[in-house]
Amino acid sequence: MPKVDLQSIDQVNRTGYPEPFDRDVAGRWYRRLGPVNGLTDFAVSQVTLKPGAWSSQRHWHNGEDEFLVMIDGEATLVEDDGRTVLKPGDCAAWPKGSTNGHHLINESDADCSFVVMGGGTNTGGGYSDIDMMFTEDGAYVRKDGTPYPEKRLA
Amino acid sequence: MPKVDLQSIDQVNRTGYPEPFDRDVAGRWYRRLGPVNGLTDFAVSQVTLKPGAWSSQRHWHNGEDEFLVMIDGEATLVEDDGRTVLKPGDCAAWPKGSTNGHHLINESDADCSFVVMGGGTNTGGGYSDIDMMFTEDGAYVRKDGTPYPEKRLA
Repeated sequence: MPKVDLQSIDQVNRTGYPEPFDRDVAGRWYRRLGPVNGLTDFAVSQVTLKPGAWSSQRHWHNGEDEFLVMIDGEATLVEDDGRTVLKPGDCAAWPKGSTNGHHLINESDADCSFVVMGGGTNTGGGYSDIDMMFTEDGAYVRKDGTPYPEKRLA
Repeated sequence: MPKVDLQSIDQVNRTGYPEPFDRDVAGRWYRRLGPVNGLTDFAVSQVTLKPGAWSSQRHWHNGEDEFLVMIDGEATLVEDDGRTVLKPGDCAAWPKGSTNGHHLINESDADCSFVVMGGGTNTGGGYSDIDMMFTEDGAYVRKDGTPYPEKRLA
């Protein structure tokens, strides 16, 4: 059945982030829509942010394009250049390799939701505001290269 | 600027379909969001269907996954198994190689819009309800292999 039965897919708030970076995404609830529906050419997730929640630490990908479309509610996109409110129907595109890190913050008092997809190949990436990077083999490391014990979730 | 400036992107209703198959999509207005925003890992378009318009002839892709999220209004998804109304926030996934053809029809009296993305590699595909297929080199052919003069749009 091509229509995705969202309710049948587990909604989780798991993260591999080391503490204290994990706390900012505790109110990020997501469903991975890709594999369960047979999609292999790109990854796609439906994400709900509770009030105050972040979509991620502000980050970029070296080898993966990302695209987001806002579905419900409002979120604030934060990047090097400033802040932009995203409303339903608004889209955002992050080509791989741009080190202008991004994330969304729900600064409203209601849930918001979006769909986000990614393609390409993980070759690592960085975080704009914290002493962390991620590697192509799924590790979190400090900017001096020393590892955190936690691993990125598959 | 990662937020996509939709109004700055040409909205077109072009199609490469031979007549009379082109008439069904005359009210399909789309913006290609991929290349203009630097995305290369997948294709993504924002589509508005006027009342009565079809998203495409009912089709499938041999080598490309497709994913759609409804943004505004309502559309009817038609496939081998029947019809399903899609509303804002609803998602649909079409893994490559499934010959269960799909398209959306706007049977409402208002515009509807969605975002659709595709990944993978074009290795051709088919149409469920008409005497046409498309090839990996962008040709439209009848099911006996004889070509139509028109070519798929790039």
